[in-house]
Amino acid sequence: MERRKSRSFLLGSVGIGGDNPVSIQSMTNTDTKDAAKTLAQINALAEAGCEIVRVTVPDHEAAEALKEICAKSPLPVVADIHFDYHLALEAMDAGVNGLRINPGNIGGTSKVKAVVKKAKEKQIPIRIGVNSGSVPKDILAKYDGHPTAMGLVESAMRHVKILEDLDFHDIKISLKSSDVPMMIEAYRIIAKMVDYPLHLGVTEAGNARHGIVKSAVGIGTLLAEGIGDTIRVSLTGDPVEEIGVAKQILRSLGLYQKGVELISCPTCGRTKINLPEMVEKIDQATAKIDKPIKIAVMGCAVNGPGEAREADIGLAGGDGLGVIFKKGEIIAKVPEDKLVETLLDEIEKMLN
Amino acid sequence: MERRKSRSFLLGSVGIGGDNPVSIQSMTNTDTKDAAKTLAQINALAEAGCEIVRVTVPDHEAAEALKEICAKSPLPVVADIHFDYHLALEAMDAGVNGLRINPGNIGGTSKVKAVVKKAKEKQIPIRIGVNSGSVPKDILAKYDGHPTAMGLVESAMRHVKILEDLDFHDIKISLKSSDVPMMIEAYRIIAKMVDYPLHLGVTEAGNARHGIVKSAVGIGTLLAEGIGDTIRVSLTGDPVEEIGVAKQILRSLGLYQKGVELISCPTCGRTKINLPEMVEKIDQATAKIDKPIKIAVMGCAVNGPGEAREADIGLAGGDGLGVIFKKGEIIAKVPEDKLVETLLDEIEKMLN
Repeated sequence: MERRKSRSFLLGSVGIGGDNPVSIQSMTNTDTKDAAKTLAQINALAEAGCEIVRVTVPDHEAAEALKEICAKSPLPVVADIHFDYHLALEAMDAGVNGLRINPGNIGGTSKVKAVVKKAKEKQIPIRIGVNSGSVPKDILAKYDGHPTAMGLVESAMRHVKILEDLDFHDIKISLKSSDVPMMIEAYRIIAKMVDYPLHLGVTEAGNARHGIVKSAVGIGTLLAEGIGDTIRVSLTGDPVEEIGVAKQILRSLGLYQKGVELISCPTCGRTKINLPEMVEKIDQATAKIDKPIKIAVMGCAVNGPGEAREADIGLAGGDGLGVIFKKGEIIAKVPEDKLVETLLDEIEKMLN
Repeated sequence: MERRKSRSFLLGSVGIGGDNPVSIQSMTNTDTKDAAKTLAQINALAEAGCEIVRVTVPDHEAAEALKEICAKSPLPVVADIHFDYHLALEAMDAGVNGLRINPGNIGGTSKVKAVVKKAKEKQIPIRIGVNSGSVPKDILAKYDGHPTAMGLVESAMRHVKILEDLDFHDIKISLKSSDVPMMIEAYRIIAKMVDYPLHLGVTEAGNARHGIVKSAVGIGTLLAEGIGDTIRVSLTGDPVEEIGVAKQILRSLGLYQKGVELISCPTCGRTKINLPEMVEKIDQATAKIDKPIKIAVMGCAVNGPGEAREADIGLAGGDGLGVIFKKGEIIAKVPEDKLVETLLDEIEKMLN
């Protein structure tokens, strides 16, 4: 698939857009004033593989806490600002690497100018983030009072125009909705209108049971069409959970090269072994592997190795006896109760 | 989004292709010979919302068991046949509603003719199912020895041609791969070449942790482009688990109208309530609702009702006091510890 060509810039040390890899973002849900707690969550997110973190800055105390947070954060920090331009200025002085702020909502030209001036001086990019719950009334009215894909786009373009008029172009745009088709459509439209990097997300996607699938469909569809430069999976719960899902989305499209891709068959009436149990054991034992490896766990020794010949290594169970294979070639026949152990040993050998 | 126009036919009582809704399939993993056990799994799948079930038919005893299975199954039954055309004939006589068989692999023209003749008599559609692990060697050789999207398509088209030459057109096609970009590309190509309905799936997608996201990205991307008439989510484990995921994929794209769409915000530093706990409670209490309803659970009473104004009903928490809202309008203010209870009461009133 061909990737949309977007403009690129740095957010802290992370390259955004252009040929840079699609990066994974999340947002803390701690009280930002509590720098220690916020930093603990940022560290956990970084450990899980998050690459950019956003923190809400609702007041002056939060902006103050940013000094410590930015100084110690292992990830670039984006300040999420609503309405109050003073907080944007304070956040930039505190050392944030990015702003999420909608310049049309901060109260007029002189305030926007002050924010843009400082952002230029400090080379801080700005994300314009609109979502279907906050489309302005006049735009809603154009579309029967309901948010639409085009309404989201128009809403974002108003803010874009304000920044462009001030010759500011380090812009990233998000157009989130909890309605996946609307979100897909909105990004498809804006992707053709501008060359700014796009941040993808399905907003208010729900808890894991609802939100994983919604996020995978919304974000995945756009990435599969070459659209998207940074992503966020929003789940109600611990944000660390979001990172694993984000990695899976990217990995499923060949956009994330690290760690295990686990292939396993759904089993059928032919399967003679307890495949689900084996898969769980192997999944848990290999979850921390960082090097890219494709592992197959197949129910059937006759077809399994051939069907999974694109896997780096795998096992296939039979009736009592199973096989270990590499790239489709059988390298060992092993009694069933030694299969998992032998596979894990072989994987360790491959990686060392 | 515009849906690809496909030919339509009946599989038992289920309309496939054309303007029929996208339907949800799964496959039993019991021993088909054990009719009682297989029927128990089919019933569980039907209960969960599965609409078509496939069973493997590896031998004569399994084909025999199909008589009882087909007589008692609440769902149309598709027989999965490999290589042996006798089993296909027996399965059709036993009463299956569909076949999954690749006519190029059953040993020559006279055998194919016998199968097609009976399928025509009994109005039984045939699914051609190729996957990246079983692309024929001569096609693999054309593409450097590796499966490719085009290889999958060519492989399927060989089987299609055999059926077309016998004037058989009640054909459904699947082109599965565990490689999501390959699978997406293959379906995109074949969608333009033929008008047969397409059955979508990512094969060997792994256990839930890996397979849900892979399936959602692969199947979701194609559905979002209007491609796909039936779907299967393959997960290693209990097939009943697949159905919930399939429903979520369809629902996220507005292709499944029943049940709850749960919207909830990811919480942020502004959230004063235990939103994840509330969401879990509401999710569990409403999981069995069949009528379509969009429920929002928002962290913030100031922005929540407005942001979730497209929801039928919702709650938004504040600091001690929360609100219940319908379509963005606040209908009640409620102490925090009564919020979930009040919401559930209101939902029950709405549905009755």
